Amino acid sequence: MDNYSSRIMIEKISPEIDGGSFPIKRTVGEKVVVNANIFADGHDEIVAVLLYRSADEDDWHEVYMKPLGNDHWIGSFPIEKEEDYLYSIRATIDEFSTWKKDLEKKINADQDISVDLKIGKQILENTIKIVKKKSTEKIFDLYIDELQASEDSNVLSSILMRDELSNIIQQNINIQKNTTFSKELKVNVDRKLALFSSWYELFPRSWSSQPGKHGNFKDCEKLIPEISRMGFDIIYLPPIHPIGKTNRKGENNSTKCKKNDPGCPWAIGSEEGGHKSIHPQLGTIESFKHFVNKAKEFNLEIALDLAYQCSPDHPYVKEHPQWFKWRPDGKVQYAENPPKKYEDVLPVNFETNDIVDLWEELKSIVLFWIDQGVRVFRVDNPHTKPFIFWDWLIAGIRKDYPDIIFLSESFTRPNIMYRLAKGGFSQSYTYFTWRSSKYEFIEYMTELTQTEVAEYFRPNFWPNTPDILPAHLQHGGWPAFIMRAVLASTLSSNFGIYGPAFELCVTEAITGKEEYSNSEKYEIKQWDWDKKGNLKNVLSRLNKIRKMNPALQFTRNIQFCEINNDSILSYYKATEDLSNIILVVVNLDPYNTQSGSLQMPLDKLGIDKERPYSANDLLSGDKYIWKGPTNYIKLDPQRSPAHIINIKQHL
Amino acid sequence: MDNYSSRIMIEKISPEIDGGSFPIKRTVGEKVVVNANIFADGHDEIVAVLLYRSADEDDWHEVYMKPLGNDHWIGSFPIEKEEDYLYSIRATIDEFSTWKKDLEKKINADQDISVDLKIGKQILENTIKIVKKKSTEKIFDLYIDELQASEDSNVLSSILMRDELSNIIQQNINIQKNTTFSKELKVNVDRKLALFSSWYELFPRSWSSQPGKHGNFKDCEKLIPEISRMGFDIIYLPPIHPIGKTNRKGENNSTKCKKNDPGCPWAIGSEEGGHKSIHPQLGTIESFKHFVNKAKEFNLEIALDLAYQCSPDHPYVKEHPQWFKWRPDGKVQYAENPPKKYEDVLPVNFETNDIVDLWEELKSIVLFWIDQGVRVFRVDNPHTKPFIFWDWLIAGIRKDYPDIIFLSESFTRPNIMYRLAKGGFSQSYTYFTWRSSKYEFIEYMTELTQTEVAEYFRPNFWPNTPDILPAHLQHGGWPAFIMRAVLASTLSSNFGIYGPAFELCVTEAITGKEEYSNSEKYEIKQWDWDKKGNLKNVLSRLNKIRKMNPALQFTRNIQFCEINNDSILSYYKATEDLSNIILVVVNLDPYNTQSGSLQMPLDKLGIDKERPYSANDLLSGDKYIWKGPTNYIKLDPQRSPAHIINIKQHL
Repeated sequence: MDNYSSRIMIEKISPEIDGGSFPIKRTVGEKVVVNANIFADGHDEIVAVLLYRSADEDDWHEVYMKPLGNDHWIGSFPIEKEEDYLYSIRATIDEFSTWKKDLEKKINADQDISVDLKIGKQILENTIKIVKKKSTEKIFDLYIDELQASEDSNVLSSILMRDELSNIIQQNINIQKNTTFSKELKVNVDRKLALFSSWYELFPRSWSSQPGKHGNFKDCEKLIPEISRMGFDIIYLPPIHPIGKTNRKGENNSTKCKKNDPGCPWAIGSEEGGHKSIHPQLGTIESFKHFVNKAKEFNLEIALDLAYQCSPDHPYVKEHPQWFKWRPDGKVQYAENPPKKYEDVLPVNFETNDIVDLWEELKSIVLFWIDQGVRVFRVDNPHTKPFIFWDWLIAGIRKDYPDIIFLSESFTRPNIMYRLAKGGFSQSYTYFTWRSSKYEFIEYMTELTQTEVAEYFRPNFWPNTPDILPAHLQHGGWPAFIMRAVLASTLSSNFGIYGPAFELCVTEAITGKEEYSNSEKYEIKQWDWDKKGNLKNVLSRLNKIRKMNPALQFTRNIQFCEINNDSILSYYKATEDLSNIILVVVNLDPYNTQSGSLQMPLDKLGIDKERPYSANDLLSGDKYIWKGPTNYIKLDPQRSPAHIINIKQHL
Repeated sequence: MDNYSSRIMIEKISPEIDGGSFPIKRTVGEKVVVNANIFADGHDEIVAVLLYRSADEDDWHEVYMKPLGNDHWIGSFPIEKEEDYLYSIRATIDEFSTWKKDLEKKINADQDISVDLKIGKQILENTIKIVKKKSTEKIFDLYIDELQASEDSNVLSSILMRDELSNIIQQNINIQKNTTFSKELKVNVDRKLALFSSWYELFPRSWSSQPGKHGNFKDCEKLIPEISRMGFDIIYLPPIHPIGKTNRKGENNSTKCKKNDPGCPWAIGSEEGGHKSIHPQLGTIESFKHFVNKAKEFNLEIALDLAYQCSPDHPYVKEHPQWFKWRPDGKVQYAENPPKKYEDVLPVNFETNDIVDLWEELKSIVLFWIDQGVRVFRVDNPHTKPFIFWDWLIAGIRKDYPDIIFLSESFTRPNIMYRLAKGGFSQSYTYFTWRSSKYEFIEYMTELTQTEVAEYFRPNFWPNTPDILPAHLQHGGWPAFIMRAVLASTLSSNFGIYGPAFELCVTEAITGKEEYSNSEKYEIKQWDWDKKGNLKNVLSRLNKIRKMNPALQFTRNIQFCEINNDSILSYYKATEDLSNIILVVVNLDPYNTQSGSLQMPLDKLGIDKERPYSANDLLSGDKYIWKGPTNYIKLDPQRSPAHIINIKQHL
């Protein structure tokens, strides 16, 4: 019979991902804005409460929701603890407000209200009976005494109509009785790094101090101070495991492998071990842990590559042949994307009947590296493994290690990338790498920040990766590299580069392709890191600007500005209190100077259009005084393809 | 472990109302178009099947869905029986297609395919093992024999690549294995009248043949032939029950009631009985049943008003005082919408503790009238009763009497009206009554027909009701009445009028209000039905056009046409096979001749723009020959404010 008493409908709650099947994501300092349609039959007044609590709390916090008209209600709550949160909505009829609203109309129409006043007193008494907080009981008692002291309608009415009384009642309304309670929805709260991070990818084997030799973790330790100076948070290493010998690929992905070719790190496993082993030339578990700890001293974390695939020499192939596909010729099936062949890599067969052991073993790999001090994983090709495997793996790891961050490397169709994010990935690769026009940026950022996607998909923008050297970097010279670094690091609060190919502006590509020629994936490189023209100082400046300006530590707060030139992209990000406002203006044309009239939305920025405000370019150090919304912008890519401007109006 | 095997995701199924909480609605002859995002990890080919069955069937019908790109799939099924339907989606990996797609690429790249052919044979053999239909077993056996007869790669490949084989496999694919099955969603299938109906509302008491006397059902029987000639399907009667005497309202809703004032029919109940009784002056149960049967002879149904409210004299008040609210002065609470008072009407208190008995009694009223032959109910003010009451009532009635039609009289906020429709109402009143500009019509029809609302909300358009005489009818003269009748009857497949106030073009309103003065709600009228200038023939013509043209028997098929005049609204409706195309052009200005250039979307209508086509105005009888998309339209409201044109191109 409980249902019979429910008169309230709560519909179209947002955010609610796939009917509540998946959590939304937040970090401490963010808030959750909840919208819903809430209504009842008839014309009674409604009170709606947004409930929320962190996983370690037993009781709900309550926030009164605000009606915006046409049954649309809104409320929000802050994320204050690094714990997952739950939220829900409760709503009920507000009898006293309903009565008061009607009484006001009757008073205005000069109707007799003597009986209505008695009804109001009754409602008040009922409310008091079910009052929640001891603290307000006394106030109510005072009201009752006052009401009983008089029979005069004017006196009674003036008491009952007091705003104070309405407020106390609303705050004490019996939200338990006759209440509709929506389902409980979940917020996965990650540590701040999940939302705000700078990644630096490097191949450790290329960093030996002795030319031609295979680098190791000890060599890499020497890079840490400089990577830290550049302001990165995470050093991400391609797989560090033994590399297979069977069908090992040579330079430029050749099937002909020369004697000393080191092989591709993603061809994991040899007689020297598999996913829980370290390639002997890189070092040992001990030297790896030393490297991790050294990085920690510089506030840097080491991210490992989680590539669930095996070389034909991986111990799994003999120990668990049932985890692979076997062909009618008795050979094990290697990875294919016809007509492309990856003879050095075997995919894991997720359709094996031995699924429990397989899943548990794959999970144990993550746990093994967690034990070695790793807290960040970049997951290779997650979209070629079942979604429900990731759901299970990440939920299981997160339960015991809520600080683990998983970055999804998936460049495929949007629904697939979004499904992986829903399933738990903390961050995701994106299409940023191929977006280059103003229209594309605005469209893509709108999708990522203004739709439901923003609730669970945290973009990570990469200008380049070992797999991708996009056309605009091949041809645009160093201005293109700076332009892409500014875009990646200011459009998205998470960004990363594959270095030092990026800061050394490497542009040699395989003809007609967006791929590096002589890729580091197949050979040991020697990098002249301090080569003239390197962009290390630019990266350092960008990361410093990001760290100093909280507005850039979020992605969803982006707003685009109007500027009358299709080659100039402009946007701003501001903190909610407007104490930090960063305006970014980027010349998307690396060849020509571009200029235009920029329109600043001063109203939204809380800036008085009659008074000057300062516009300090944090990239160049130039300082301007602007006034009013329209400002002339001119960007010579040979000088600097972008402004990152701190906007401030002094009181 | 079952979940482990599932690689397919089925997301964003549409239609799916509130996560499947509510059914969609259809009638026989309509179809259900289902969209979904369907995808798997990796690059395997997917086969997706739309499943459907009527409630009386045990097995699913299957329709293969079509991929539209970017993981978006579509399928549809027809409603062929007057039974509720269920639908769902199943999808799985299509191993053979995946294999074949890859093989084609390898052949094009001149790769060795000998092992691949063996794999193909294996897949084929596995498929055959799990084949569903006996009928295809033989064909497969022939293929196996053929494949075993040769070792030659070219021969094997040519056999395996045959389209016939792919087709048979796809049709027999083991949709049971490794299959994701979405939840079962429901279609409420109503009889055709729920989608296509013309309503005529009349007050029986005004139709006595003796001036000044109270009319009865016998009098009303005489109206049936003319209402039938006008082409209506339903005669809807305001409440026919005894009318209360206490606080009875006089003429023009006056609280001063003269001796012979008949009272408002919505003040239900007196010592003569309640909701299961008939007002003695109207007749008896027997004479009512006679009236119902007489109507049936003319293919007319009688709709009753279901107004769950009581006069203070209703037997319920004494028998079930707990079903009403009582005031501190010991008096029963009458209906109020402050400062308005409805002293002659008591609302039912749905917050009573005696809810089971109350609900059952209210349901028994419907069952009582069903027993008397009533199959259509117009529900008064449903939005002032709990939504879950209607959900329960309508589902309960529909279970035993699936042919019952409930029309929701709710003029309130959109979410509330939509929620009532979701809960089961077959048809709903709308905002049509107040819409008058071209922009408003296009916006409102788009909401009603192009959004999810169209799946469950069947609009019923009323130009007037006893409660509403809209401003445009008060001032626009008979052209406004014709214009509104054309709009109501061609925009919506369900429409109704309150007669004979409509066809006699009654325009007398209470000053400054959109209400009839001397409303029939409070007094007995005498109508001169054949008065000069009456619009009975126009209504007859409109209903005949609707009956002859299937295109007008649906609402969702509306498409608007461009015309360069904001006072002219133009739209067309066509059957799916384009065998019936009706173009409507309406001058929204009842005062002035309006003209413009109409653009016909000939491509969509399957009309050759190089050849002439006929355009016959079914309202005026005028016949035109048009050619090409642009046609000049001129509408003089004094001649006819609208065209209803049958478009046809002869072969």
